[in-house]
Amino acid sequence: MTTPNWRHKDLLDTKDLSPSEILYLLDTAAQFEEVNTRPVKKVPTLRGKGVILFFAEPSTRTKTSFDIAGKRLSADTFSLAKSGSSLTKGESLKDTALTLEAMAPDIIVIRHSSSGAAAFLADRLACSIVNAGDGWHAHPTQALLDAYTLRKHWQGEMRGKTVVIIGDIMHSRVARSNMHLLTQLGAKVRLFGPRTLLPKGVHNWPVTVYDDMNKAVKDADAVMCLRLQLERQQAGLLPDLSEYAARFCLQQKHLDLAAPGAPVLHPGPINRGLEISSDLADAPESRILDQVAAGVAVRMAVLFTLGMRNEAA
Amino acid sequence: MTTPNWRHKDLLDTKDLSPSEILYLLDTAAQFEEVNTRPVKKVPTLRGKGVILFFAEPSTRTKTSFDIAGKRLSADTFSLAKSGSSLTKGESLKDTALTLEAMAPDIIVIRHSSSGAAAFLADRLACSIVNAGDGWHAHPTQALLDAYTLRKHWQGEMRGKTVVIIGDIMHSRVARSNMHLLTQLGAKVRLFGPRTLLPKGVHNWPVTVYDDMNKAVKDADAVMCLRLQLERQQAGLLPDLSEYAARFCLQQKHLDLAAPGAPVLHPGPINRGLEISSDLADAPESRILDQVAAGVAVRMAVLFTLGMRNEAA
Amino acid sequence: MTTPNWRHKDLLDTKDLSPSEILYLLDTAAQFEEVNTRPVKKVPTLRGKGVILFFAEPSTRTKTSFDIAGKRLSADTFSLAKSGSSLTKGESLKDTALTLEAMAPDIIVIRHSSSGAAAFLADRLACSIVNAGDGWHAHPTQALLDAYTLRKHWQGEMRGKTVVIIGDIMHSRVARSNMHLLTQLGAKVRLFGPRTLLPKGVHNWPVTVYDDMNKAVKDADAVMCLRLQLERQQAGLLPDLSEYAARFCLQQKHLDLAAPGAPVLHPGPINRGLEISSDLADAPESRILDQVAAGVAVRMAVLFTLGMRNEAA
Repeated sequence: MTTPNWRHKDLLDTKDLSPSEILYLLDTAAQFEEVNTRPVKKVPTLRGKGVILFFAEPSTRTKTSFDIAGKRLSADTFSLAKSGSSLTKGESLKDTALTLEAMAPDIIVIRHSSSGAAAFLADRLACSIVNAGDGWHAHPTQALLDAYTLRKHWQGEMRGKTVVIIGDIMHSRVARSNMHLLTQLGAKVRLFGPRTLLPKGVHNWPVTVYDDMNKAVKDADAVMCLRLQLERQQAGLLPDLSEYAARFCLQQKHLDLAAPGAPVLHPGPINRGLEISSDLADAPESRILDQVAAGVAVRMAVLFTLGMRNEAA
Repeated sequence: MTTPNWRHKDLLDTKDLSPSEILYLLDTAAQFEEVNTRPVKKVPTLRGKGVILFFAEPSTRTKTSFDIAGKRLSADTFSLAKSGSSLTKGESLKDTALTLEAMAPDIIVIRHSSSGAAAFLADRLACSIVNAGDGWHAHPTQALLDAYTLRKHWQGEMRGKTVVIIGDIMHSRVARSNMHLLTQLGAKVRLFGPRTLLPKGVHNWPVTVYDDMNKAVKDADAVMCLRLQLERQQAGLLPDLSEYAARFCLQQKHLDLAAPGAPVLHPGPINRGLEISSDLADAPESRILDQVAAGVAVRMAVLFTLGMRNEAA
Repeated sequence: MTTPNWRHKDLLDTKDLSPSEILYLLDTAAQFEEVNTRPVKKVPTLRGKGVILFFAEPSTRTKTSFDIAGKRLSADTFSLAKSGSSLTKGESLKDTALTLEAMAPDIIVIRHSSSGAAAFLADRLACSIVNAGDGWHAHPTQALLDAYTLRKHWQGEMRGKTVVIIGDIMHSRVARSNMHLLTQLGAKVRLFGPRTLLPKGVHNWPVTVYDDMNKAVKDADAVMCLRLQLERQQAGLLPDLSEYAARFCLQQKHLDLAAPGAPVLHPGPINRGLEISSDLADAPESRILDQVAAGVAVRMAVLFTLGMRNEAA
């Protein structure tokens, strides 16, 4: 693993990454994926570095993925959750962040319900910030692990591929981060979802919007389902769930219209029968578990790259 | 520590273990108990291995015991609790488990309120599963640490010894796992508890059931009290607690009827004055804290044996 | 780092420390502060030692500070929280503590709402106990980090300095521990706060009590604000918060009366505009973040000193 020459202090958004930077991270992740198949799944690169996992929204899978990534690099990791912490004592995000920084971590990974929370910290702290999801805004490591999964499936070729993203686009940081990343790598992005769940400015995005599942999926090279946040229904943005499922749940008959062998992705946790049929979730086309495995490797690549950037000779 | 030649991928139930396998684990635990008395309580055997502690029921003492055991073997450990996690997002146990496996842990330790949860995972995952308690079904490391404690007390001799188990037998995975293990090692098991809290099929078990404390304890070589889950009372299965204590709380006068020097065990946490008198909990006959210490050594033996089984030359 | 010759098994209260012992801890902390500026912030001194962080009251910042301190010394750390644990099963503190000790940790760090909880454990357990705050009684590592911060600011000189402590004195373990420590090091302590929030025996303390902010701060060499526990208001001990702020919130105009360059301290988390004006919290005189950084170094010194005391040649 060569020491990276990396210009970014933080990883906030896939928008900030050039194509060559994206490819550097994906190539580095490939090296770490190999480490993850060894009996001793550990390298000493970040020994003596500290990574704070600051999750103000609950997320077991993403936090555990970062925790595993950090420890496989021999970093020390520290978990902070919102509940049961002094965060409940009404301290501002700024004061919490400054306090954490004073303990001299090398990297803070943050998940927060407010769009822009990660950038807010990045502006104020000298240590590296990794955005693990901020509101509806961005979730860059998710987009990187999706791209990793697709690129591996396509044996390195992303250019000219068509990826359709299905579901609640408006509230999805996953959709936004994927759109930027896939476009940078030369893929074409289609969107399909309930009209009430399309973002206002979507017609300025570099995407094609569809209003019919069959047309959206037709000849697509990959299909990406989004998780539906069930609380949207209470907000009146959704019809009842069985109606939603009838129109927006990906099924085999839809996938049959896509390009042969087109893989299916989902960021998890899945609501079977709502976003994706249970059969399809378990079918060979499903890459959902490959995504999880890629998540550890991609997060190792991100932590390694940020953690070692000041060590360059 | 020699690399084990071990046929089981998982530890689900004491029923699955042969007498020689039980003795192998207890002998290995004895070696680790010695490690736990050193100034540097750490061996490098599981360096680079990952152990996920997935506790869907709260249990500080068992989780901490496994955590300490894992770290003393130099494994990396990862704690997952049910509350405040994506597990609250309605994902199925199967999908959670497949997701965890995709992160490439070597061992998943699971506690779950459903009998059979650990076996369900073991069938579906390639990594090793350790059952840390599933519903009323089994709690094999508890039975192993109880056997360890008794065997040490009896200087290696289990055959022909009589152990009486007192309390809520029906809801006790501890009672079931102990019955199998003690029987395998040649001990005789007596049961005593409220008639309403005896399991239906108890007359097919290799035990003798008593309906009087004095007779149950008479000449017993060891007495094991069970924890009473106080919520059973609301379910109408218990008389009021003072009546329960009068009939089922172990006291010195009962222990005087047992074999001289008979040790008293309890899996903890204890309800003083309900399952065992406060005096007796602190008496020299009490082996409750020895059990806790044995718990770390036994769990080190289990994690070591499962974690190294694929490394055999 | 030389192995300490240290007579105390535990750190319970600043009252127990002689001036030379305090200076030993502060000097040791200075060495660890240097470690915390290195790219590899880790020393092997406590490898194979176990530190249990038993926080029965929530406190992210203090727990994280101890966690970072432990791991930078290469100790294994184990977090126990009250909620979601077997502690909710009604076990007594004594039984919990004996159980934890049976797992053979080297140090237990405890925070508890009852004054005397740490001493209660120290009397009963063979392992070292560190008091991380017990009720209104003591918080010795907070006082040590405050003294560290002041001593560094004053380039080693504490004797003859005047420190004013402002706020809810009665309920403050921080105030009590600081008063003892500062007095031992030859500083003079002033107190100022609402009359209803002065402790009964305050006139026997080695302090001067003021009833006016301007007089309290006049010519002081340092100003220490306390955190206001907002729940005191419900208890009828406080006027409404705006009235409190008008009388007890430290502002620039007050600090102008103090000695030139007098530093401002606060244990955090801060309630801006209530205990300290927002401007002053961010002003150069504020040492709040230095205190946090000192906290890690001081806790490394404490864990190192207690963890190595039995290793003396």
